[in-house]
Amino acid sequence: MSKADKRNKFLAVFERIREELINHMKLEKMPEDAVTWFNESLLYNVPGGKLNRGISVVDTVAILLNRPLTDDEYSKAALLGWCIELLQAFFLVSDDMMDGSISRRGQPCWYRVHDVKGLGKVHNVAINDSFMLEGAIYHLLKTHFRRESYYVDLLELFQEVTYKTEMGQLVDLITAPEDNIDIRKYNLDKHTFIVRYKTAFYSFYLSVALAMRMCGVPDVYELNGKTIEPYKEADQILIPMGEFFQVQDDYLDYHGTEEEIGKIGTDIVDGKCSWCVCTALTYGTDAQKQFLYENYGKKGADQAVQEQAVKDMYNDEQGLNIPRRYEEYQKKAVAEINAMIDRVPEPDAHEVVKGDRLRRDAFRAFLSKITDRKA
Amino acid sequence: MSKADKRNKFLAVFERIREELINHMKLEKMPEDAVTWFNESLLYNVPGGKLNRGISVVDTVAILLNRPLTDDEYSKAALLGWCIELLQAFFLVSDDMMDGSISRRGQPCWYRVHDVKGLGKVHNVAINDSFMLEGAIYHLLKTHFRRESYYVDLLELFQEVTYKTEMGQLVDLITAPEDNIDIRKYNLDKHTFIVRYKTAFYSFYLSVALAMRMCGVPDVYELNGKTIEPYKEADQILIPMGEFFQVQDDYLDYHGTEEEIGKIGTDIVDGKCSWCVCTALTYGTDAQKQFLYENYGKKGADQAVQEQAVKDMYNDEQGLNIPRRYEEYQKKAVAEINAMIDRVPEPDAHEVVKGDRLRRDAFRAFLSKITDRKA
Repeated sequence: MSKADKRNKFLAVFERIREELINHMKLEKMPEDAVTWFNESLLYNVPGGKLNRGISVVDTVAILLNRPLTDDEYSKAALLGWCIELLQAFFLVSDDMMDGSISRRGQPCWYRVHDVKGLGKVHNVAINDSFMLEGAIYHLLKTHFRRESYYVDLLELFQEVTYKTEMGQLVDLITAPEDNIDIRKYNLDKHTFIVRYKTAFYSFYLSVALAMRMCGVPDVYELNGKTIEPYKEADQILIPMGEFFQVQDDYLDYHGTEEEIGKIGTDIVDGKCSWCVCTALTYGTDAQKQFLYENYGKKGADQAVQEQAVKDMYNDEQGLNIPRRYEEYQKKAVAEINAMIDRVPEPDAHEVVKGDRLRRDAFRAFLSKITDRKA
Repeated sequence: MSKADKRNKFLAVFERIREELINHMKLEKMPEDAVTWFNESLLYNVPGGKLNRGISVVDTVAILLNRPLTDDEYSKAALLGWCIELLQAFFLVSDDMMDGSISRRGQPCWYRVHDVKGLGKVHNVAINDSFMLEGAIYHLLKTHFRRESYYVDLLELFQEVTYKTEMGQLVDLITAPEDNIDIRKYNLDKHTFIVRYKTAFYSFYLSVALAMRMCGVPDVYELNGKTIEPYKEADQILIPMGEFFQVQDDYLDYHGTEEEIGKIGTDIVDGKCSWCVCTALTYGTDAQKQFLYENYGKKGADQAVQEQAVKDMYNDEQGLNIPRRYEEYQKKAVAEINAMIDRVPEPDAHEVVKGDRLRRDAFRAFLSKITDRKA
């Protein structure tokens, strides 16, 4: 199936989910204008992204089962996938408010849309709209998975990952508040915490762990005399993978060309807590740090000059040489992740695969998506 | 035990909970400034209210068991009570942002506190702070109740009640946005939906249902040849009770004296979607409605005159006569609630009480708190 077909098939499931959520509101006798409002929030905020996280659940289930999914299996996996997309929508709608962002996915941020609706300056309704996107997850899980033995595991997974993401967001917000940049607070430990908690758990670990639950992978099992804790294994592989993904993102923002990354990077001017600046602050001399304090995250008439000066310092082959440091980081990270994947104990090839055992391919599929990317 | 002792005993449990939540953050290696931030959010937002909801869980467990609680039972019930208080904190922190409120419980609203902290205008962090108050609930439930057979019921209860409260908040926000009052949108049906969904589920049903779960009350049981669905019974009694509580609140805002309610009512000037105005709009003549359109929810030089004019119209014994309508409503509501309580099938007095059956006193305790109150 082509990538576009796959996406369309997945999108068709959203249509059913949206109807189900809206019908529930009608059954609860919610007034019509509020039902319409929630419907618009769902349509505006949930399906417009790349859908990588959601579709990964379907892909991972197929890898674990090692065969095409039945219709019922597809529906279930896609529903879990859409629950991740709902979680993502909850985070994005609220993050955009917290960051005061202007646009998202090529359209105005949802909290800025309300002004258009003749309701006056009530854009703060978007806070509650974000809550309802989260709330919908548990309504759907209850409706579709209540009778499954792994139902409580699904609830816990979503709750834990949500809490962790919120912890990451807190550290991000107070380390690097958009309107009060102070790069003296930045360091690589905080960077690691932020990318792991704010992004890696929900973007990398969650889809695989959900697929594992759906396939009946237990918390512990024995294989060839070894005790395996598969969710811990998945965590230990996928969280560094998510971290690597974000470091790559940070690096490309500074070093990628517009053609490579499809945009012009703004992290230096915006003063972002990027892997590059954290690395510079860790390994730079006092003079280099001082230079960053004076030129990083500065907006104004000289911003282009200051940005270029920071880039020159990053580029300096005799000095900081961020490209070399990144190459070293990248090689090491990918090698370590690959080594961890290779150590995952797998059932022998001749054993019947029921889908309830960890498979290396589930991780490899994820990793190849990242290492292949430019943007 | 005196009311103050009861409160202090309950507050002592919060101290343990806060430490537990903070230690968890430290174990996750969250940077220190973020741990401090979360700690302050917990202290500022969770324990400062009347704690009625939380203490009701303890009270209801004692009524169901019909004996004093063991230390372990007390701890468990109090923990569930604090989970309601965390839920309440989540709602209040976010509601205050959505309403643009100034103060809460005699201190500045949390989102307005950040300005003081030298972090600049980052008050929107409070959105994420509210999320973390919610997230803490599920972390605590997992830590303390995971091994209990009713664990999944607790999770579902919190999730369902949260979703319903958010639905009520949506209807409230788009029916009566603070900065764009249009009372033509108000009616008694919307009022009922808002008070039931936004308040009654989490303030009335939740504490009793949590206590019932903890005591092992099953979803269905037989008693004297009758099939009983105790959670439905509880819902059918407590939701109208919560509605009555709010109607009383609305009525006292207009009709209570400062001595009676401890504050001066502002619903008329603020243009609130109160039971009084909804009743007036339902039963008033076209001329009376027109008068309300012109005088209700108006701020400015004439606001005191307009407010008094609305009150006079409400008071008019030959006309709208809101006090008489309220008396009729109140009598009917209390009679109906009492009748429902009296119909609750109870075990015979000589049967050993294990706590896993519905008891009328659980509802009566709640109702007497309301009917006795002025404020």
